[in-house]
Amino acid sequence: AAPTMAELLAAAKETDPHPAELPALPPSDGTSTEHRYTFTVTEQDDPVVPGRTRAVWTYNGTSPGPTLHGRVGDTFHITLVNAGTMGHSIDFHAGEVAPDEPMRTIEPGESLEYTFTAHRSGIWMYHCSTMPMTHHIANGMFGAVVIEPDGLEPVDRSYVLVGSELYLGADGAAADHAKLAAMQPDVAAFNGRAFQYDAHPLTARVGERVRFWVLNVGPNLGLSFHVVGSQFDTVWREGAYSVFHGTSTDGITQGTTGAQVLPLIAAEGGFVELVPREAGHYPFVNHVMTLGEKGAHGVLEVTD
Amino acid sequence: AAPTMAELLAAAKETDPHPAELPALPPSDGTSTEHRYTFTVTEQDDPVVPGRTRAVWTYNGTSPGPTLHGRVGDTFHITLVNAGTMGHSIDFHAGEVAPDEPMRTIEPGESLEYTFTAHRSGIWMYHCSTMPMTHHIANGMFGAVVIEPDGLEPVDRSYVLVGSELYLGADGAAADHAKLAAMQPDVAAFNGRAFQYDAHPLTARVGERVRFWVLNVGPNLGLSFHVVGSQFDTVWREGAYSVFHGTSTDGITQGTTGAQVLPLIAAEGGFVELVPREAGHYPFVNHVMTLGEKGAHGVLEVTD
Amino acid sequence: AAPTMAELLAAAKETDPHPAELPALPPSDGTSTEHRYTFTVTEQDDPVVPGRTRAVWTYNGTSPGPTLHGRVGDTFHITLVNAGTMGHSIDFHAGEVAPDEPMRTIEPGESLEYTFTAHRSGIWMYHCSTMPMTHHIANGMFGAVVIEPDGLEPVDRSYVLVGSELYLGADGAAADHAKLAAMQPDVAAFNGRAFQYDAHPLTARVGERVRFWVLNVGPNLGLSFHVVGSQFDTVWREGAYSVFHGTSTDGITQGTTGAQVLPLIAAEGGFVELVPREAGHYPFVNHVMTLGEKGAHGVLEVTD
Ligand SMILES: [Cu+2]
Ligand SMILES: [Cu+2]
Ligand SMILES: [Cu+2]
Ligand SMILES: [Cu+2]
Ligand SMILES: [Cu+2]
Ligand SMILES: [Cu+2]
Ligand code: NA
Ligand code: NA
Ligand code: NA
Ligand code: NA
Ligand code: NA
Ligand code: NA
Ligand SMILES: [Zn+2]
Ligand SMILES: [Zn+2]
Ligand SMILES: [Zn+2]
Ligand SMILES: [Zn+2]
Ligand SMILES: [Zn+2]
Ligand SMILES: [Zn+2]
Ligand SMILES: [Zn+2]
Ligand SMILES: [Zn+2]
Ligand SMILES: [Zn+2]
Repeated sequence: AAPTMAELLAAAKETDPHPAELPALPPSDGTSTEHRYTFTVTEQDDPVVPGRTRAVWTYNGTSPGPTLHGRVGDTFHITLVNAGTMGHSIDFHAGEVAPDEPMRTIEPGESLEYTFTAHRSGIWMYHCSTMPMTHHIANGMFGAVVIEPDGLEPVDRSYVLVGSELYLGADGAAADHAKLAAMQPDVAAFNGRAFQYDAHPLTARVGERVRFWVLNVGPNLGLSFHVVGSQFDTVWREGAYSVFHGTSTDGITQGTTGAQVLPLIAAEGGFVELVPREAGHYPFVNHVMTLGEKGAHGVLEVTD
Repeated sequence: AAPTMAELLAAAKETDPHPAELPALPPSDGTSTEHRYTFTVTEQDDPVVPGRTRAVWTYNGTSPGPTLHGRVGDTFHITLVNAGTMGHSIDFHAGEVAPDEPMRTIEPGESLEYTFTAHRSGIWMYHCSTMPMTHHIANGMFGAVVIEPDGLEPVDRSYVLVGSELYLGADGAAADHAKLAAMQPDVAAFNGRAFQYDAHPLTARVGERVRFWVLNVGPNLGLSFHVVGSQFDTVWREGAYSVFHGTSTDGITQGTTGAQVLPLIAAEGGFVELVPREAGHYPFVNHVMTLGEKGAHGVLEVTD
Repeated sequence: AAPTMAELLAAAKETDPHPAELPALPPSDGTSTEHRYTFTVTEQDDPVVPGRTRAVWTYNGTSPGPTLHGRVGDTFHITLVNAGTMGHSIDFHAGEVAPDEPMRTIEPGESLEYTFTAHRSGIWMYHCSTMPMTHHIANGMFGAVVIEPDGLEPVDRSYVLVGSELYLGADGAAADHAKLAAMQPDVAAFNGRAFQYDAHPLTARVGERVRFWVLNVGPNLGLSFHVVGSQFDTVWREGAYSVFHGTSTDGITQGTTGAQVLPLIAAEGGFVELVPREAGHYPFVNHVMTLGEKGAHGVLEVTD
């Protein structure tokens, strides 16, 4: 049987939350930046709930892997090191490269260099693309690259949430192939662990502008991102605002408007902004509600 | 086994349709309006098909509950009264409020006050948010708040359609938890009852402009709203037009354009408009076709 | 059991690929064009993999049927001939017509005339609408009508991809009703056959502008169209660009942007463009990754 909400929440309280804060970039000096990373693949155990450990395969020890962050024009140099027991690889949606060499699968003990220049703003998925890809993604091999649009205005809080599904195998095992083929996950999560931001809320203050960068890595189902008690006055999705500071970008809609959800199919991303008016606890959720109840849920705690 | 299309259609003929018409607002006098409602929760029986009654939990006796309708700046005062046998609550996406107090669960016999000002235009979901929320939504506790964009032009016909899924338990029982967890509904509906607008068509005349406000309350699956034989010359979704009277809002697309669907993930809403050119029967459907065949289907009857 | 990726790929190598190229329209002479077609429905066998043949029902012998192509203002005259063994019909989303007569089901040996004028640009689905419609669509009765926006700029390569799901019955049988009701396909495809463009890649040259018109005919699931190693600098979806040549259409986003996916619910369509920077093999995929692995996958081979 799938873990219950109570079991998942109890387990989340026993673990440190994955950091969701996106630090501000240093001010631009007008030149592009070179970013250098080593991504080491390891295969580990993740105690989803007591008695139900899953194999989790990671870049640098966490799932999601590191959030990369830069500006249009920046170049990223990644050394991928396979310290696991099987073939792995990486595919960055953030770059335009012929896949043949940089995305090739490398065997344990091997490494490769992957360089890309970020020509376009967005929150871009990265993931292992070794077959079967659903398996490598569902086992934790994914993350986000945030490339800020030029001149993106500063906000008071900036968070990154990566939505994903878990298809549990037997205790200790990797993701279940039959559940993946049926697209029926047991658990859903923001940043890899169900209910972790219920156990350890994200924070803001009344009147602050809060930006959520959200990426749905799937591998399969939809993410209808909603913040209870709030409305998005700004929505940016795959390259375009539909609403900006309460004004529609269509040139036609009059008056103040907004959105209740950021709708994201698998591999899609964007950001939303809100300004909480009152102190309190604002749950954020995948409003594909069964997935919210399976763990794609957290809390933004707002204080005066 | 799930009810058949024939059984559902026969049952729809035996019941009165849920009203879909959205009356025009009185002309604005330039001031905001105070709206006052009492929402009484009751738990009832709904004969889906003969021999297959479901428990339906409602606001004011119907599922969907009342459609609220106003303008940006209006304030809504709702007194929620729990006349049921278990805890219930309400969450209005239409307002920005700290959830802690107004969205709290109240026990049978209790009541609460929920006040919100509608700062942003849209068709906003409301629903019971008592856990497990999928259960309370699937059992019927949802509805729509329509906040018109400023200066929204009058149309000849205005309808509201709320799309939802039914996960039938045993005869007389509430929604089935396992089917909800698997996201496999037996029935789908516009305004709570499968095929009711096949049994009792909506109407329009040739050359009239017809607006459909559509909200997908899920709880889980997608709604691809389509009107057979027609094309949408106007599409407004979560705060923005993509097409308005046949002209793209992108500033680039030349010539007349339009859309075949309004795509809505769970908890998303918008409106579309069409102008039928000929008399006849125009089916409207969730083009996620299995859901259309499970009941998310109706007819717009157009006469000269 | 569902066919494996290896079996599907081997079968794709044994068959000719469905043509994906969209030939350029002849230059416009400023007048609208009359297009005349006969669509003959036949029921055939399709060897999905050895030992697993499916019934496929087609317009003019292929699934998808013919891609119609024209401009806003063109008129299409289709003679539908039922050369099958059961009732069939056709519904063109590309036209605005009262459904009653042109979309009616005709019996074997009968024919009907269906005329529509394409008033709006887009990639519009057509399909058999005889009940149960999921069955007729899943058995192959679908295709696309491409109506170019006025002044659409020429590109170097133009392809049409129609995404669909296959719900296999027993060897030799038509689509399985229970799998359709559960929305659990065995196979997914671009242009009707899994992995056919892995077996027979589409082609382009470095620096060419490549346009993909993409239509999701479902009947049920989402299509997150992505080209590995590439980014879309142009996205047009149901009547509107969100990004055009790397510039957002919102009037606000500064700098170069783009998109990683074209998200399409069932019955939705649009086009994307990319310009490959390097020679290599660029897979295109439904990033609803289980469907990609079930066959909604191909390769764009780029040479210097
Ligand atoms: Cu891997
Ligand atoms: Cu909600
Ligand atoms: Cu309730
Ligand atoms: Cu259709
Ligand atoms: Cu047919
Ligand atoms: Cu990818
Ligand atoms: Na720099
Ligand atoms: Na807000
Ligand atoms: Na007033
Ligand atoms: Na129209
Ligand atoms: Na002509
Ligand atoms: Na590109
Ligand atoms: Zn460099
Ligand atoms: Zn600002
Ligand atoms: Zn909650
Ligand atoms: Zn008041
Ligand atoms: Zn008008
Ligand atoms: Zn119908
Ligand atoms: Zn003609
Ligand atoms: Zn150009
Ligand atoms: Zn591949």
